[in-house]
Amino acid sequence: MTTFPPSVQSRVVTDEDVKRTYAADAGPAPREPSRDVPSDYTVVRARDVADVVAVLEHAQATGTPVVPQGARTSRVGGARATEGCIVLNVEALDAIETVDPVEGIAVVGPGVVNADLKTAAAAAGLFYGPDPASTGTCTIGGNVATNAGGLCCLKYGVTADWVTALDVVLPGGEVMRTGHRTAKGVTGLDLTGLLVGSEGTLGVVTRVVTRLLPAPDPALTALATFGSLDDAVRAVVTLRLDRHRPSLLEILDRASLEAVQAFGDYGFPADADAVLLVQSDRPGHAAEDVARYGELMTGAGALEVAVAEDRQEADLLLQGRRVLSTAIEALGSRLAEDVCVPVGRLGDYVRGAAEVSERLGVRIPVSGHAGDGNLHPSIVYPPGDDDARRRAWGAFDELMRLGLSLGGTVAGEHGIGSVKRRWFAAEVGPREVQRQRAIKAVFDPSGIMNPEVVFGGGRWATRPGSTST
Amino acid sequence: MTTFPPSVQSRVVTDEDVKRTYAADAGPAPREPSRDVPSDYTVVRARDVADVVAVLEHAQATGTPVVPQGARTSRVGGARATEGCIVLNVEALDAIETVDPVEGIAVVGPGVVNADLKTAAAAAGLFYGPDPASTGTCTIGGNVATNAGGLCCLKYGVTADWVTALDVVLPGGEVMRTGHRTAKGVTGLDLTGLLVGSEGTLGVVTRVVTRLLPAPDPALTALATFGSLDDAVRAVVTLRLDRHRPSLLEILDRASLEAVQAFGDYGFPADADAVLLVQSDRPGHAAEDVARYGELMTGAGALEVAVAEDRQEADLLLQGRRVLSTAIEALGSRLAEDVCVPVGRLGDYVRGAAEVSERLGVRIPVSGHAGDGNLHPSIVYPPGDDDARRRAWGAFDELMRLGLSLGGTVAGEHGIGSVKRRWFAAEVGPREVQRQRAIKAVFDPSGIMNPEVVFGGGRWATRPGSTST
Repeated sequence: MTTFPPSVQSRVVTDEDVKRTYAADAGPAPREPSRDVPSDYTVVRARDVADVVAVLEHAQATGTPVVPQGARTSRVGGARATEGCIVLNVEALDAIETVDPVEGIAVVGPGVVNADLKTAAAAAGLFYGPDPASTGTCTIGGNVATNAGGLCCLKYGVTADWVTALDVVLPGGEVMRTGHRTAKGVTGLDLTGLLVGSEGTLGVVTRVVTRLLPAPDPALTALATFGSLDDAVRAVVTLRLDRHRPSLLEILDRASLEAVQAFGDYGFPADADAVLLVQSDRPGHAAEDVARYGELMTGAGALEVAVAEDRQEADLLLQGRRVLSTAIEALGSRLAEDVCVPVGRLGDYVRGAAEVSERLGVRIPVSGHAGDGNLHPSIVYPPGDDDARRRAWGAFDELMRLGLSLGGTVAGEHGIGSVKRRWFAAEVGPREVQRQRAIKAVFDPSGIMNPEVVFGGGRWATRPGSTST
Repeated sequence: MTTFPPSVQSRVVTDEDVKRTYAADAGPAPREPSRDVPSDYTVVRARDVADVVAVLEHAQATGTPVVPQGARTSRVGGARATEGCIVLNVEALDAIETVDPVEGIAVVGPGVVNADLKTAAAAAGLFYGPDPASTGTCTIGGNVATNAGGLCCLKYGVTADWVTALDVVLPGGEVMRTGHRTAKGVTGLDLTGLLVGSEGTLGVVTRVVTRLLPAPDPALTALATFGSLDDAVRAVVTLRLDRHRPSLLEILDRASLEAVQAFGDYGFPADADAVLLVQSDRPGHAAEDVARYGELMTGAGALEVAVAEDRQEADLLLQGRRVLSTAIEALGSRLAEDVCVPVGRLGDYVRGAAEVSERLGVRIPVSGHAGDGNLHPSIVYPPGDDDARRRAWGAFDELMRLGLSLGGTVAGEHGIGSVKRRWFAAEVGPREVQRQRAIKAVFDPSGIMNPEVVFGGGRWATRPGSTST
């Protein structure tokens, strides 16, 4: 149990039930069930930057690990309590300080919910791009920590493409300011870029400056069903070659469609092998684009194409996609996965996942952001079945290996967290792990920042029993 | 004089005249004329990656500084020979390995000329965005080193927004691979982003993977003359707020217009205080956009607006902008500057520069990428006049200070090089300089990589007489 200076003591969560809710994130339960909720950890709900500074002074002085935390939507165990740590929650740093249409920037706290930034931008006729599926709950701080993506990355890129400057509190309490509020700036190493995606291993982000763009039109949608996966992939390739990039291009494979139809009738034909959803938000041309996308998909062999003529119809077409996550969770326990492969290898990945599913006897619906090659297989198994759980984790390993063998990466947009640490090392190699630890040590010499995620370093490397994968 | 292993010896330039051409870049002559061309340096023209590896093995083993070099278009002394160094030129690594329309990437060597990558992309119906004014000569490797911008950044961003993966040879000869060829990927720290803009201080880039986008339309142009700078700045602000971002938005101030008109009659009225050039390349809407931009500028108080109805007219309107650099160089010796300020402070910067010009008795035409707040003042003084040269450097300091005082940065897109090292430190502060040196040391523990630029480190910090600012 950590004892803080009085200024911070009042931010410490004392109610055990409340405290427990801050111990977990949205990642899977640990691979080894014995490694469960830690017995000793402290939760601090920071109210302002001074709290963050005080905690990081204290943590550095006492060598206490710090796990920075926003809305705990991490899918990879990036924001969960570890033994002896301080969970430092910054959700309350949720000010939208500035939305500046002339400079085209917003300045926000890390606790601002992604959708709230979008809403604030929209009120000024502007647009903030990144839209993780958890947009209504996830926070910008977490988006920065994981370099979050979402559904519209195909056209609008990921969080790193939008963030231009940060305030970051480092271990010991130094406030580091990176980047520029100007449109351009090249003064030395790009530490903003280094911090985005660093998963809380370097410091705690307390202020974020993002770009904002002129708002696009509301999106319209085309939906196509395919009798063959190869036809669907051919359609994805054709859509990638269109002169006007879709703002969304999602795929659901056969297992995903089965999961959705088992949940309720969303109108997917029983013989469909895959569904594609495509959107355009191009000002003045959304209807024309989705009509053309529809024709392109027909040309690629779609069984059936539905094109929304207005916003309501567009929403209807998305319903099946929207319930997918709930439908999958209704099937059992779930490992929600996230790989990215070259677009040309999408078919190989989906087929490979089906083969793994068959061989290991776990369901693996695959869906995701086909336009980016970023797929989210879900490995589903009966809760409480230890053998099935082991097979599910075996499938997890195979899905990682499959992604790498196709020239892909083990983490498209969720990050590495604690869950994928071993696969991170497999992807980048031991020299790179060492290099990234050495860079971490520049910011965090005693290795207290989120030490059990990504590449470890500091205490992580030497503490027994601290690995969760 | 360095002695290399035989494999590299044949790449060493022995002709003294040829060698001298590799000693300089496009930056200004050193501030102190006594610090001129170094007496001892070696030039290696690498033919392949193996040459780069061999040079960096040798350099590490012997503690010899290495200055990586492309087409030597650096405006800030980022690629010039220093005492005792190896100049490592990689212009010959100029293969365009891949242009892949499906994945939307190109894979190129660092010696590929910016315009050649654009041409190769265009041949596949695609587009590579960054377009420094030196597009016809500058190389992608140098663009990566400086995170180069250009004229279309307002709409298309800078080099960092396009580069997704790199091969980099580190001191000692290790080949480091960063980033992803997939559309997304978040595996640990973003070392691609760290390398872009690192000005050759970490390693030598030997392969670059960039994004490519569907090609826009050929751009059309509107040109407006303004009787008052404030009106011109108001027009810039109005254009920034337009729903369709211009692909180019350039300003020329009164002193720039005078320089152009002294060079030849390009039709600028004598009473103009500023000219704005605006382009649109929006597919199917370029003519409509530039007509609207013209109306917006009229509304903001333009004296006169010309709108090009076709490509030929658009080119004509750009002529005055195109000769600006030549016209300025015809006036005398030149310090070509590069600051970026908030768009709302453009007027304050241009007025401040005019005040410095008046007070110090040097001409300072200001032009640049108004849409980004990225201005290029040119400080012009009579060649051979030592007193004027000193006043010019005094003006340089004042222009840096002015940019910082307006919330701007001392380097918008040219980088720090050796010329702005002191101002880099002034902008970011001593702790940040130390931090960046510590990060450099992770890649370059003996401090041999371009040690006299940006933040120094390694030998630079202790060698006397090696500072050129």
